[in-house]
Amino acid sequence: MTQARKLKLGFILHGVGRTWNDWRHPDKDVNASTNFAFYKEQAQLAERGKFDFVFVADSLSITEKSSPHYLNRFEPITILSALAGATSRIGLVGTLTVSYSEPFNVARQFASLDHISGGRAGWNVVTSWLGDTAANFSKTEHPAHDVRYKIAAEYLDVVQGLWDSWEDDAHVADKESGVFVDPDKLHRLDHRGDFFHVRGPLNIKRGPQGQPVIFQAGASDDGRNFAARRAEAIFTHAPTFEDGVSYYGDVKERARGFGRDPEALFILPGITPIIGDSDAEAEARYRELAARESLESGFGFLSRTFNDHDFRQYDLDGPFPDVAHIGRNSQQSSSDRILAEVRAENLTLRQVVERLATPRGAFVGSPETVADTLQTWFEGGAADGFVVFEALPGQLALFVEKVVPILQARGLFREDYEGVTFRDSLGLPVPVNRHTAKREARVAA
Amino acid sequence: MTQARKLKLGFILHGVGRTWNDWRHPDKDVNASTNFAFYKEQAQLAERGKFDFVFVADSLSITEKSSPHYLNRFEPITILSALAGATSRIGLVGTLTVSYSEPFNVARQFASLDHISGGRAGWNVVTSWLGDTAANFSKTEHPAHDVRYKIAAEYLDVVQGLWDSWEDDAHVADKESGVFVDPDKLHRLDHRGDFFHVRGPLNIKRGPQGQPVIFQAGASDDGRNFAARRAEAIFTHAPTFEDGVSYYGDVKERARGFGRDPEALFILPGITPIIGDSDAEAEARYRELAARESLESGFGFLSRTFNDHDFRQYDLDGPFPDVAHIGRNSQQSSSDRILAEVRAENLTLRQVVERLATPRGAFVGSPETVADTLQTWFEGGAADGFVVFEALPGQLALFVEKVVPILQARGLFREDYEGVTFRDSLGLPVPVNRHTAKREARVAA
Repeated sequence: MTQARKLKLGFILHGVGRTWNDWRHPDKDVNASTNFAFYKEQAQLAERGKFDFVFVADSLSITEKSSPHYLNRFEPITILSALAGATSRIGLVGTLTVSYSEPFNVARQFASLDHISGGRAGWNVVTSWLGDTAANFSKTEHPAHDVRYKIAAEYLDVVQGLWDSWEDDAHVADKESGVFVDPDKLHRLDHRGDFFHVRGPLNIKRGPQGQPVIFQAGASDDGRNFAARRAEAIFTHAPTFEDGVSYYGDVKERARGFGRDPEALFILPGITPIIGDSDAEAEARYRELAARESLESGFGFLSRTFNDHDFRQYDLDGPFPDVAHIGRNSQQSSSDRILAEVRAENLTLRQVVERLATPRGAFVGSPETVADTLQTWFEGGAADGFVVFEALPGQLALFVEKVVPILQARGLFREDYEGVTFRDSLGLPVPVNRHTAKREARVAA
Repeated sequence: MTQARKLKLGFILHGVGRTWNDWRHPDKDVNASTNFAFYKEQAQLAERGKFDFVFVADSLSITEKSSPHYLNRFEPITILSALAGATSRIGLVGTLTVSYSEPFNVARQFASLDHISGGRAGWNVVTSWLGDTAANFSKTEHPAHDVRYKIAAEYLDVVQGLWDSWEDDAHVADKESGVFVDPDKLHRLDHRGDFFHVRGPLNIKRGPQGQPVIFQAGASDDGRNFAARRAEAIFTHAPTFEDGVSYYGDVKERARGFGRDPEALFILPGITPIIGDSDAEAEARYRELAARESLESGFGFLSRTFNDHDFRQYDLDGPFPDVAHIGRNSQQSSSDRILAEVRAENLTLRQVVERLATPRGAFVGSPETVADTLQTWFEGGAADGFVVFEALPGQLALFVEKVVPILQARGLFREDYEGVTFRDSLGLPVPVNRHTAKREARVAA
C-alpha cells in the first residue's frame, strides 16, 4: 500500500509584513519584526496547524528608503534558534547567503540548530545580488552571475562535507574505557577548491537529521539547475497556475536529467491567501488591503508595460481604456495578461492599478474556494505544497482553523506529524554519511 | 545613600565538562554538550540562583586528539538564542572570534539576540590563536599578535558603530502618517579603516540594552590594554588570590589610565568550586575528581617544572622527594609554589601530581568555607565577582542552594534581579547613542 501524496505547507514569518504599507493595518503590531512574542505565537499557531515548517527570509543591506520589512528584522539563525525552544515538531528554515559568510561557521550554526531543535533545521541557500550589500562586507563588487553559482555549489559541497565529519557512531563516549570519540570515524574534509580551503572536521557531531534540509529559490537558468541538482525543496514564485505548471515541469525535468528522483524535490510556490467567510468577504478584504497601498507603483508598472503610456488621463473608476494597440513591445506577455484579465472580469482602471500595486494572487476566497485552488495547483502539477504569507492579521489563524481541516478531510494534508524531525515530515530519509557509505562499500567488495 | 557593592556571578555552560575525563563521572550525561535540555536546566538553575549571566565559550578547530569538550559543542549564538526563550532575567554571554567572521553579521546576531532576550546579550570578544584554526577558514596563517589586537579594536569599532545605526527614536512607525522610520535618525556608518570597509546602517534597530555588554579575556600586555580600554567585564584566570590581586590592580590601573571609571569594568576570575557539607567531604570530592583524571599530565608538568627530573622513580604515596636543589631554572616561580604547598600541607607525591593534573583551586570546602573565600577575594581586591565552572554534577545546585544564601545573608549578593536587562543586573547604564549625543551637543552649542 503506497501512502497518498500529501501537500507540504510552510509559513513565512515576516514581522511587520511584506508590502510597503501593510504594517499600517489597525491590528498590526508595528514592532512585530523584532518582537519575539509575535514570532513565537505565529510559529506555535503554524505548528497547531501541522505546518511542515516556518521560514525566515533575509537581506543584508538597507537605506532609509528601504521597505519596512527590510529595514528592521531579526537575523534568521538567532530567531530560528529561539523558536526551536518554543516549538517541538515544526521545521525551522532560514535564508543565509553564501556570499558573505564562512562555510565552517554556517555549517556549525545549522548543525547546532539541528541539535537544539531535535532535528528540524533547514537552510535556504542563496547568493546575494543587491549591489549595496558588498559595501557592508568590505567588498567593492559582486562576482558575476555564473561565478556566483560556482561559489554557491562549492560552498554547499564544503558545508555538506563538514556535516558528514562525524559518522553516526563516531561519538563512542564509553565511560568504562574512557574512549570519547572513535578516531577512525571522525573525518577531516581537506577541501581545497577554487574558492575555499577547509580542513575540518566540524566541531559538532552529526545532528538528528544527518544533514539539515536544503532549500533553494532558483529562478534563472543557472538558479534552476542549481536547485534541481542540490535542493530538497524550492521556494518559488508563481503568480498564476500556468506559471506554476511551467516552472514545476521544467525543474522536475531538470532534476530527472541530473539523475534525481523528482519526488524527492518539493516545489513550493509562495502564496498570499486572503480568506473570508464568503468569497465576497474575502474580496472585500483584498480591497481593504489594496486601498492601504499607494497606487503609485501600480501606475508605474502599468505605464512601463504599455510603452510609457500615461494612464492618469483616464477615469479611475471607468472601464479599463482600450489600449490593445499600444502593447506590441518587449513587455508583451505582461500586457497580454493584463488585457486578458480585463476581458475576463470586466475590470475598471482602478482595479487593474490596485492589482498591480497589490498583487492579488490566486488564493482569495472562502475557505472552500482557497482549498479548491490549493487542490487544483497540487493535483494539476503546479506545486508539491505552498509557502504561506500572511496578508492581513488573522489570516494565518483562519488558514489553520478553516482551510487546514478541509485539506485534511480531503486527504490532502496530514492529520498529525509523521515523526519527530523535519525530514520525517517531508518523508525524506536521513542521508547516509559519505564515510560510512565508503566503509560499507569496502567491506562489501 | 550609596548602594553596597555586590559581587557578580556568571556560570559557564560547558556540556560534558572542562577536563579530559570529567565526562566519565557516573552522573554525567555524555551527550551534555549537544543536549539542549541539559543547557536549559543549567541556565534555569543559575537564574534561580540570581546569577548575572551564563557564559558559552568557543573554539573553532579540532583533531581526533582534542579534549572532549572541544570535540563536540553547541555553536554559541544558536544555544544562547535558544536559551533566551527559556529564561527571563539572566544575561547571555558568548564568545565569538573577530578573526573569522564579518562584523556586519556579528553585530546583527548579537543585536538580534538582544531583542529576542529582552536585553540580555553579551559578547566575549576574542581573537583566535590556535594555529589550526586558519585551515578551517581558507587562510594559511594568523596575523601577528600585535596586528590581531589592531584588527580586534577596529572590528569592535565597526560592530559598536553599527549598533548605533538607529537612534532610539528612529523607528517612528506612525500608522496615520505612514512614516515608518525617521531618515534623519537612521545612520550609515561609512567606516573605511585598515581592515574593514562597512557602510551600514545595520538592518535591525537598537536593542533594549542600546549596546550588548562587551566581555574580554586579555592576559597578555596587548590583551590587558584592549580589555582595560574596551571591555565592560573581563573573564580572567587567577589560580591564587595573589594572582587575582595582581591582575585586578594592574587592569584597573590601566583602565584609570585610559580615563575610564574602574568600577564600570568588572573583573571576574573563573573558579571551580567543589562544595561538600563539610570541608572534609569537599576534599573527598576533589580526590574523587582527581582520581578520575590520568596522572600523566601531572607527571609531565612536574618534570618540566624541575628540569626534566624523573619523578616516577619515587614512591607515589611517600612524602614529596627533596628536590629543592633542582628547581633553579626558568620555571622557578612554579617550582617555588609547589615546594611551598608541600611544606605548608605536608603533601605526598601523589597529592602533588593530582593537583597538577587536576588543579584544585582555592574554592574547595563547605558552603561557609567557599563563601568565606569568595568574600576574601571580593573584599580583598582580587575580584568583582566570579565565573563558576561546575567540577562535578550537582555542584551548581549546591552553589545555588547553599552558597548563594550565605552571600545574600552577608549582603554580598542580590536577593533578586535589579531590573530587566543584563545591564540592569550589572548596574551599567544604556550607552547614549553617538548620533543622539552629537545632535544634543549641536543643539546645546
